[in-house]
Amino acid sequence: MKNAESEYPIHELIEKRWSPYVFADRAVPKDGLCSLFEAARWTMSSYNAQPWRYIVGIRGYSDTLRDQIFSVLLEGNQAWAGQAPVLALGLVEHNFEHNGQPNKAAIHDLGAASAQLTLEATARGLCVHQMVGINPDKAREVFDLPDSIEPFTGLAIGYPGKVEDADQEFANRDRSPRMRKSLQDILLVGFDFLMPG
Amino acid sequence: MKNAESEYPIHELIEKRWSPYVFADRAVPKDGLCSLFEAARWTMSSYNAQPWRYIVGIRGYSDTLRDQIFSVLLEGNQAWAGQAPVLALGLVEHNFEHNGQPNKAAIHDLGAASAQLTLEATARGLCVHQMVGINPDKAREVFDLPDSIEPFTGLAIGYPGKVEDADQEFANRDRSPRMRKSLQDILLVGFDFLMPG
Repeated sequence: MKNAESEYPIHELIEKRWSPYVFADRAVPKDGLCSLFEAARWTMSSYNAQPWRYIVGIRGYSDTLRDQIFSVLLEGNQAWAGQAPVLALGLVEHNFEHNGQPNKAAIHDLGAASAQLTLEATARGLCVHQMVGINPDKAREVFDLPDSIEPFTGLAIGYPGKVEDADQEFANRDRSPRMRKSLQDILLVGFDFLMPG
Repeated sequence: MKNAESEYPIHELIEKRWSPYVFADRAVPKDGLCSLFEAARWTMSSYNAQPWRYIVGIRGYSDTLRDQIFSVLLEGNQAWAGQAPVLALGLVEHNFEHNGQPNKAAIHDLGAASAQLTLEATARGLCVHQMVGINPDKAREVFDLPDSIEPFTGLAIGYPGKVEDADQEFANRDRSPRMRKSLQDILLVGFDFLMPG
Protein backbone atom coordinates (compact mmCIF):
# COMPACT_ATOMS: atom_id res chain seq x y z
CA MET A 1 0.00 0.00 0.00
CA LYS A 2 1.01 3.62 -0.36
CA ASN A 3 1.66 6.14 2.32
CA ALA A 4 0.00 9.52 2.34
CA GLU A 5 2.52 12.35 2.22
CA SER A 6 0.97 13.88 5.26
CA GLU A 7 1.93 17.25 6.68
CA TYR A 8 0.71 16.24 10.13
CA PRO A 9 0.86 12.73 11.58
CA ILE A 10 -2.19 10.60 10.87
CA HIS A 11 -3.19 7.10 11.90
CA GLU A 12 -1.56 4.37 9.85
CA LEU A 13 -4.93 3.01 8.65
CA ILE A 14 -5.72 6.39 7.11
CA GLU A 15 -2.18 6.77 5.80
CA LYS A 16 -2.10 3.35 4.11
CA ARG A 17 -5.61 3.23 2.65
CA TRP A 18 -5.46 3.02 -1.12
CA SER A 19 -8.07 2.47 -3.87
CA PRO A 20 -6.29 0.13 -6.29
CA TYR A 21 -6.97 -0.56 -9.95
CA VAL A 22 -5.10 -3.86 -9.73
CA PHE A 23 -6.45 -6.68 -7.56
CA ALA A 24 -4.86 -10.03 -6.74
CA ASP A 25 -6.49 -13.29 -7.82
CA ARG A 26 -6.97 -14.31 -4.21
CA ALA A 27 -10.21 -14.99 -2.34
CA VAL A 28 -11.27 -12.84 0.61
CA PRO A 29 -11.92 -14.91 3.78
CA LYS A 30 -15.62 -14.88 4.57
CA ASP A 31 -15.20 -13.97 8.23
CA GLY A 32 -12.98 -11.04 7.27
CA LEU A 33 -15.65 -9.88 4.88
CA CYS A 34 -18.24 -10.03 7.65
CA SER A 35 -16.04 -7.71 9.72
CA LEU A 36 -16.04 -5.17 6.89
CA PHE A 37 -19.82 -4.88 6.94
CA GLU A 38 -19.77 -5.01 10.73
CA ALA A 39 -17.50 -1.93 10.65
CA ALA A 40 -20.03 -0.16 8.41
CA ARG A 41 -22.80 -1.19 10.80
CA TRP A 42 -21.22 0.65 13.75
CA THR A 43 -20.93 4.00 11.94
CA MET A 44 -22.47 7.15 13.42
CA SER A 45 -25.52 8.50 11.60
CA SER A 46 -27.98 11.34 11.78
CA TYR A 47 -30.75 10.38 14.23
CA ASN A 48 -29.06 6.96 14.27
CA ALA A 49 -31.12 6.16 11.17
CA GLN A 50 -28.38 3.89 9.74
CA PRO A 51 -29.52 4.57 6.17
CA TRP A 52 -26.70 2.54 4.54
CA ARG A 53 -27.56 -0.67 2.72
CA TYR A 54 -25.30 -3.08 0.85
CA ILE A 55 -25.63 -5.85 -1.70
CA VAL A 56 -22.62 -8.15 -1.84
CA GLY A 57 -21.55 -10.85 -4.27
CA ILE A 58 -18.58 -13.15 -3.73
CA ARG A 59 -16.65 -15.07 -6.38
CA GLY A 60 -17.00 -18.79 -5.66
CA TYR A 61 -19.91 -18.35 -3.22
CA SER A 62 -22.51 -16.19 -4.87
CA ASP A 63 -21.33 -15.86 -8.44
CA THR A 64 -24.72 -15.08 -9.93
CA LEU A 65 -25.14 -12.21 -7.52
CA ARG A 66 -21.59 -11.01 -8.20
CA ASP A 67 -22.36 -11.10 -11.94
CA GLN A 68 -25.52 -9.07 -11.36
CA ILE A 69 -23.55 -6.43 -9.46
CA PHE A 70 -20.90 -6.44 -12.20
CA SER A 71 -23.62 -5.81 -14.81
CA VAL A 72 -24.62 -2.63 -12.97
CA LEU A 73 -21.13 -1.06 -13.10
CA LEU A 74 -20.35 1.37 -15.91
CA GLU A 75 -18.10 -0.04 -18.64
CA GLY A 76 -15.04 1.98 -17.63
CA ASN A 77 -15.25 0.50 -14.15
CA GLN A 78 -16.00 -3.04 -15.33
CA ALA A 79 -12.61 -2.97 -17.07
CA TRP A 80 -10.69 -3.04 -13.78
CA ALA A 81 -13.27 -3.92 -11.09
CA GLY A 82 -13.98 -7.25 -12.76
CA GLN A 83 -10.77 -8.63 -11.26
CA ALA A 84 -11.92 -8.07 -7.68
CA PRO A 85 -13.17 -11.25 -5.99
CA VAL A 86 -15.90 -9.36 -4.14
CA LEU A 87 -18.23 -6.77 -5.63
CA ALA A 88 -20.78 -4.80 -3.67
CA LEU A 89 -23.27 -2.01 -4.13
CA GLY A 90 -23.74 0.79 -1.60
CA LEU A 91 -27.33 2.01 -1.36
CA VAL A 92 -29.27 4.44 0.79
CA GLU A 93 -32.70 4.30 2.37
CA HIS A 94 -33.85 7.89 1.83
CA ASN A 95 -36.75 7.91 4.30
CA PHE A 96 -36.77 7.70 8.07
CA GLU A 97 -38.40 4.53 9.35
CA HIS A 98 -40.18 6.25 12.23
CA ASN A 99 -42.07 8.84 10.17
CA GLY A 100 -41.40 8.23 6.46
CA GLN A 101 -39.91 11.72 6.08
CA PRO A 102 -36.79 12.23 3.92
CA ASN A 103 -33.46 11.82 5.70
CA LYS A 104 -31.28 14.69 4.48
CA ALA A 105 -28.11 12.99 5.70
CA ALA A 106 -28.69 9.58 4.08
CA ILE A 107 -26.08 9.88 1.34
CA HIS A 108 -23.62 11.61 3.70
CA ASP A 109 -23.98 8.72 6.12
CA LEU A 110 -23.47 6.06 3.44
CA GLY A 111 -20.18 7.85 2.71
CA ALA A 112 -19.24 7.57 6.38
CA ALA A 113 -20.20 3.88 6.60
CA SER A 114 -18.25 2.97 3.47
CA ALA A 115 -15.25 4.87 4.86
CA GLN A 116 -15.37 2.75 8.04
CA LEU A 117 -15.75 -0.40 5.90
CA THR A 118 -12.72 0.70 3.86
CA LEU A 119 -10.52 1.34 6.91
CA GLU A 120 -11.52 -2.03 8.39
CA ALA A 121 -10.42 -3.54 5.07
CA THR A 122 -7.10 -1.70 5.29
CA ALA A 123 -6.56 -3.15 8.77
CA ARG A 124 -6.94 -6.61 7.22
CA GLY A 125 -4.56 -6.04 4.30
CA LEU A 126 -7.54 -5.70 1.97
CA CYS A 127 -8.39 -2.83 -0.35
CA VAL A 128 -11.68 -1.26 -1.34
CA HIS A 129 -12.09 0.83 -4.47
CA GLN A 130 -15.40 2.65 -4.55
CA MET A 131 -17.01 4.02 -7.67
CA VAL A 132 -19.92 6.33 -8.24
CA GLY A 133 -19.99 5.13 -11.85
CA ILE A 134 -22.86 2.66 -11.71
CA ASN A 135 -26.19 2.48 -13.51
CA PRO A 136 -28.75 3.10 -10.73
CA ASP A 137 -31.78 2.41 -12.94
CA LYS A 138 -30.39 -0.93 -13.97
CA ALA A 139 -29.65 -1.77 -10.32
CA ARG A 140 -33.27 -0.93 -9.42
CA GLU A 141 -34.46 -3.29 -12.10
CA VAL A 142 -32.02 -6.14 -11.44
CA PHE A 143 -32.63 -6.12 -7.68
CA ASP A 144 -36.28 -4.99 -7.73
CA LEU A 145 -35.65 -2.16 -5.27
CA PRO A 146 -38.35 -0.02 -3.64
CA ASP A 147 -38.50 3.69 -4.59
CA SER A 148 -37.09 4.90 -1.28
CA ILE A 149 -33.82 3.02 -1.85
CA GLU A 150 -31.19 4.57 -4.12
CA PRO A 151 -28.27 2.55 -5.46
CA PHE A 152 -25.35 4.95 -5.12
CA THR A 153 -21.91 3.33 -5.26
CA GLY A 154 -20.10 0.23 -6.40
CA LEU A 155 -17.38 -1.28 -4.23
CA ALA A 156 -14.61 -3.57 -5.51
CA ILE A 157 -13.05 -5.48 -2.61
CA GLY A 158 -9.98 -7.71 -2.58
CA TYR A 159 -6.26 -7.97 -1.96
CA PRO A 160 -4.04 -5.57 -3.89
CA GLY A 161 -2.45 -7.17 -6.96
CA LYS A 162 1.04 -7.08 -8.46
CA VAL A 163 1.32 -3.97 -10.57
CA GLU A 164 4.12 -5.59 -12.64
CA ASP A 165 1.76 -8.26 -13.97
CA ALA A 166 -1.11 -5.90 -14.68
CA ASP A 167 -2.49 -4.11 -17.70
CA GLN A 168 -0.27 -1.09 -18.39
CA GLU A 169 -3.04 1.49 -18.03
CA PHE A 170 -4.19 0.30 -14.63
CA ALA A 171 -0.64 -0.37 -13.43
CA ASN A 172 0.22 3.24 -14.22
CA ARG A 173 -2.77 4.48 -12.25
CA ASP A 174 -1.61 2.45 -9.24
CA ARG A 175 1.93 3.76 -9.64
CA SER A 176 0.93 7.41 -9.79
CA PRO A 177 1.47 9.50 -6.65
CA ARG A 178 -1.45 10.49 -4.44
CA MET A 179 -2.54 14.06 -5.10
CA ARG A 180 -4.40 16.16 -2.59
CA LYS A 181 -5.38 19.79 -2.06
CA SER A 182 -3.50 21.56 0.72
CA LEU A 183 -5.05 21.98 4.15
CA GLN A 184 -5.41 25.67 3.34
CA ASP A 185 -7.63 24.77 0.39
CA ILE A 186 -10.05 22.68 2.43
CA LEU A 187 -10.16 24.92 5.52
CA LEU A 188 -12.32 27.74 4.17
CA VAL A 189 -12.22 29.79 7.35
CA GLY A 190 -10.08 29.19 10.41
CA PHE A 191 -6.88 28.07 8.69
CA ASP A 192 -4.91 31.10 9.89
CA PHE A 193 -5.90 30.45 13.48
CA LEU A 194 -5.22 26.74 13.27
CA MET A 195 -1.87 27.05 11.56
CA PRO A 196 -0.54 30.59 11.92
CA GLY A 197 2.46 31.77 9.90
CA MET B 1 -15.47 5.49 25.40
CA LYS B 2 -17.92 2.71 24.69
CA ASN B 3 -17.36 -0.52 22.89
CA ALA B 4 -19.54 -1.62 20.04
CA GLU B 5 -21.25 -4.92 20.74
CA SER B 6 -19.93 -6.31 17.53
CA GLU B 7 -20.87 -9.69 16.12
CA TYR B 8 -17.62 -9.87 14.16
CA PRO B 9 -14.29 -8.41 15.26
CA ILE B 10 -13.70 -4.82 14.14
CA HIS B 11 -10.76 -2.47 14.55
CA GLU B 12 -10.57 -0.81 17.95
CA LEU B 13 -10.85 2.69 16.48
CA ILE B 14 -14.20 1.76 14.97
CA GLU B 15 -15.24 -0.09 18.11
CA LYS B 16 -14.42 2.80 20.47
CA ARG B 17 -15.72 5.73 18.43
CA TRP B 18 -18.50 7.51 20.26
CA SER B 19 -20.44 10.74 19.67
CA PRO B 20 -20.74 12.22 23.17
CA TYR B 21 -23.21 14.76 24.52
CA VAL B 22 -20.86 15.57 27.41
CA PHE B 23 -17.49 17.21 26.72
CA ALA B 24 -14.65 17.94 29.14
CA ASP B 25 -13.56 21.52 29.82
CA ARG B 26 -10.14 20.81 28.34
CA ALA B 27 -8.45 22.40 25.35
CA VAL B 28 -7.56 20.36 22.27
CA PRO B 29 -3.85 20.63 21.33
CA LYS B 30 -3.48 22.56 18.10
CA ASP B 31 -1.18 20.05 16.43
CA GLY B 32 -3.61 17.24 17.23
CA LEU B 33 -6.37 19.26 15.66
CA CYS B 34 -4.28 19.72 12.52
CA SER B 35 -3.98 15.94 12.28
CA LEU B 36 -7.78 15.62 12.33
CA PHE B 37 -8.16 17.79 9.24
CA GLU B 38 -5.12 16.10 7.71
CA ALA B 39 -6.97 12.78 8.11
CA ALA B 40 -9.97 14.26 6.29
CA ARG B 41 -7.64 15.54 3.58
CA TRP B 42 -6.40 12.05 2.70
CA THR B 43 -9.89 10.57 2.16
CA MET B 44 -10.79 8.88 -1.12
CA SER B 45 -13.25 10.77 -3.31
CA SER B 46 -15.05 10.44 -6.60
CA TYR B 47 -12.69 11.65 -9.40
CA ASN B 48 -10.41 12.74 -6.53
CA ALA B 49 -12.46 15.95 -6.41
CA GLN B 50 -11.98 16.32 -2.63
CA PRO B 51 -15.26 18.24 -2.28
CA TRP B 52 -15.07 18.50 1.53
CA ARG B 53 -14.55 21.90 3.11
CA TYR B 54 -14.37 22.85 6.78
CA ILE B 55 -14.63 25.97 8.88
CA VAL B 56 -13.11 25.60 12.35
CA GLY B 57 -13.25 27.77 15.47
CA ILE B 58 -11.20 27.11 18.60
CA ARG B 59 -11.94 28.32 22.13
CA GLY B 60 -9.07 30.57 23.22
CA TYR B 61 -7.61 31.01 19.72
CA SER B 62 -10.42 32.00 17.41
CA ASP B 63 -13.33 32.71 19.73
CA THR B 64 -15.20 35.02 17.37
CA LEU B 65 -15.15 32.37 14.69
CA ARG B 66 -16.21 29.71 17.19
CA ASP B 67 -19.11 31.96 18.25
CA GLN B 68 -20.12 32.39 14.62
CA ILE B 69 -20.17 28.62 14.12
CA PHE B 70 -22.14 28.22 17.35
CA SER B 71 -24.73 30.72 16.08
CA VAL B 72 -25.35 28.50 13.06
CA LEU B 73 -26.22 25.38 15.11
CA LEU B 74 -29.87 24.65 15.81
CA GLU B 75 -30.97 25.38 19.37
CA GLY B 76 -31.26 21.74 20.40
CA ASN B 77 -27.65 21.21 19.42
CA GLN B 78 -26.38 24.44 20.96
CA ALA B 79 -27.58 23.08 24.31
CA TRP B 80 -24.85 20.42 24.41
CA ALA B 81 -22.37 21.35 21.66
CA GLY B 82 -21.64 24.66 23.36
CA GLN B 83 -19.40 22.84 25.84
CA ALA B 84 -17.04 21.56 23.15
CA PRO B 85 -13.82 23.57 22.89
CA VAL B 86 -13.73 23.23 19.11
CA LEU B 87 -16.65 23.73 16.76
CA ALA B 88 -16.51 23.19 13.04
CA LEU B 89 -18.78 23.21 10.02
CA GLY B 90 -18.58 20.58 7.28
CA LEU B 91 -19.38 21.94 3.82
CA VAL B 92 -19.34 20.64 0.28
CA GLU B 93 -18.24 22.14 -3.00
CA HIS B 94 -20.97 20.84 -5.30
CA ASN B 95 -19.25 21.50 -8.63
CA PHE B 96 -16.18 19.92 -10.17
CA GLU B 97 -13.31 22.36 -10.54
CA HIS B 98 -12.25 21.08 -13.95
CA ASN B 99 -15.59 21.56 -15.72
CA GLY B 100 -18.05 23.22 -13.32
CA GLN B 101 -20.43 20.26 -13.59
CA PRO B 102 -22.26 18.98 -10.48
CA ASN B 103 -20.40 16.34 -8.47
CA LYS B 104 -23.01 13.73 -7.57
CA ALA B 105 -20.80 12.27 -4.84
CA ALA B 106 -19.96 15.52 -3.03
CA ILE B 107 -22.13 14.95 0.03
CA HIS B 108 -21.22 11.24 0.14
CA ASP B 109 -17.55 12.17 0.13
CA LEU B 110 -17.94 14.77 2.90
CA GLY B 111 -19.42 11.91 4.96
CA ALA B 112 -16.34 9.82 4.24
CA ALA B 113 -13.92 12.65 5.09
CA SER B 114 -15.66 13.44 8.37
CA ALA B 115 -15.59 9.71 9.23
CA GLN B 116 -11.81 9.68 8.74
CA LEU B 117 -11.53 12.87 10.81
CA THR B 118 -13.60 11.23 13.54
CA LEU B 119 -11.50 8.05 13.64
CA GLU B 120 -8.30 10.13 13.77
CA ALA B 121 -9.87 11.92 16.76
CA THR B 122 -10.65 8.56 18.39
CA ALA B 123 -7.00 7.54 17.98
CA ARG B 124 -6.05 10.68 19.95
CA GLY B 125 -8.55 10.18 22.78
CA LEU B 126 -10.75 12.89 21.31
CA CYS B 127 -14.40 12.68 20.34
CA VAL B 128 -16.36 14.20 17.50
CA HIS B 129 -20.13 14.57 17.56
CA GLN B 130 -21.54 15.53 14.18
CA MET B 131 -24.93 17.10 13.64
CA VAL B 132 -26.99 17.74 10.56
CA GLY B 133 -29.05 20.19 12.63
CA ILE B 134 -27.57 23.48 11.45
CA ASN B 135 -29.06 26.50 9.72
CA PRO B 136 -27.44 26.44 6.24
CA ASP B 137 -28.93 29.78 5.15
CA LYS B 138 -27.54 31.50 8.22
CA ALA B 139 -24.14 29.89 7.60
CA ARG B 140 -24.18 31.22 4.02
CA GLU B 141 -24.86 34.68 5.33
CA VAL B 142 -22.41 34.63 8.25
CA PHE B 143 -19.54 33.29 6.15
CA ASP B 144 -20.52 34.88 2.81
CA LEU B 145 -20.32 31.57 0.96
CA PRO B 146 -20.56 31.14 -2.83
CA ASP B 147 -23.63 29.35 -4.24
CA SER B 148 -21.73 26.18 -5.13
CA ILE B 149 -20.79 25.59 -1.49
CA GLU B 150 -23.36 24.01 0.83
CA PRO B 151 -22.96 24.06 4.62
CA PHE B 152 -24.02 20.56 5.63
CA THR B 153 -22.90 19.50 9.11
CA GLY B 154 -21.75 20.86 12.44
CA LEU B 155 -18.95 19.10 14.31
CA ALA B 156 -18.34 19.39 18.06
CA ILE B 157 -14.79 18.30 18.90
CA GLY B 158 -13.18 17.77 22.30
CA TYR B 159 -12.31 15.31 25.03
CA PRO B 160 -15.19 13.30 26.50
CA GLY B 161 -16.47 14.72 29.78
CA LYS B 162 -17.47 13.16 33.09
CA VAL B 163 -21.04 12.00 32.80
CA GLU B 164 -21.46 12.22 36.61
CA ASP B 165 -20.98 16.00 36.57
CA ALA B 166 -23.19 16.62 33.58
CA ASP B 167 -26.73 17.74 32.99
CA GLN B 168 -29.04 14.77 33.61
CA GLU B 169 -30.53 14.72 30.13
CA PHE B 170 -27.21 14.63 28.32
CA ALA B 171 -25.65 12.28 30.87
CA ASN B 172 -28.47 9.82 30.21
CA ARG B 173 -27.90 10.02 26.48
CA ASP B 174 -24.22 9.19 27.00
CA ARG B 175 -25.13 6.32 29.34
CA SER B 176 -27.59 4.70 26.96
CA PRO B 177 -26.42 1.62 25.05
CA ARG B 178 -25.49 1.80 21.40
CA MET B 179 -28.30 0.54 19.19
CA ARG B 180 -27.77 -0.79 15.70
CA LYS B 181 -29.72 -2.70 13.07
CA SER B 182 -28.53 -6.26 12.50
CA LEU B 183 -26.21 -7.13 9.63
CA GLN B 184 -29.18 -8.86 8.02
CA ASP B 185 -31.04 -5.55 7.95
CA ILE B 186 -28.31 -3.65 6.15
CA LEU B 187 -27.30 -6.42 3.72
CA LEU B 188 -30.25 -6.23 1.32
CA VAL B 189 -29.05 -9.05 -0.89
CA GLY B 190 -26.17 -11.42 -0.27
CA PHE B 191 -26.61 -11.93 3.47
CA ASP B 192 -27.46 -15.62 3.07
CA PHE B 193 -24.32 -16.25 1.07
CA LEU B 194 -22.12 -14.24 3.40
CA MET B 195 -23.46 -15.73 6.59
CA PRO B 196 -25.27 -19.00 5.85
CA GLY B 197 -27.38 -20.70 8.50
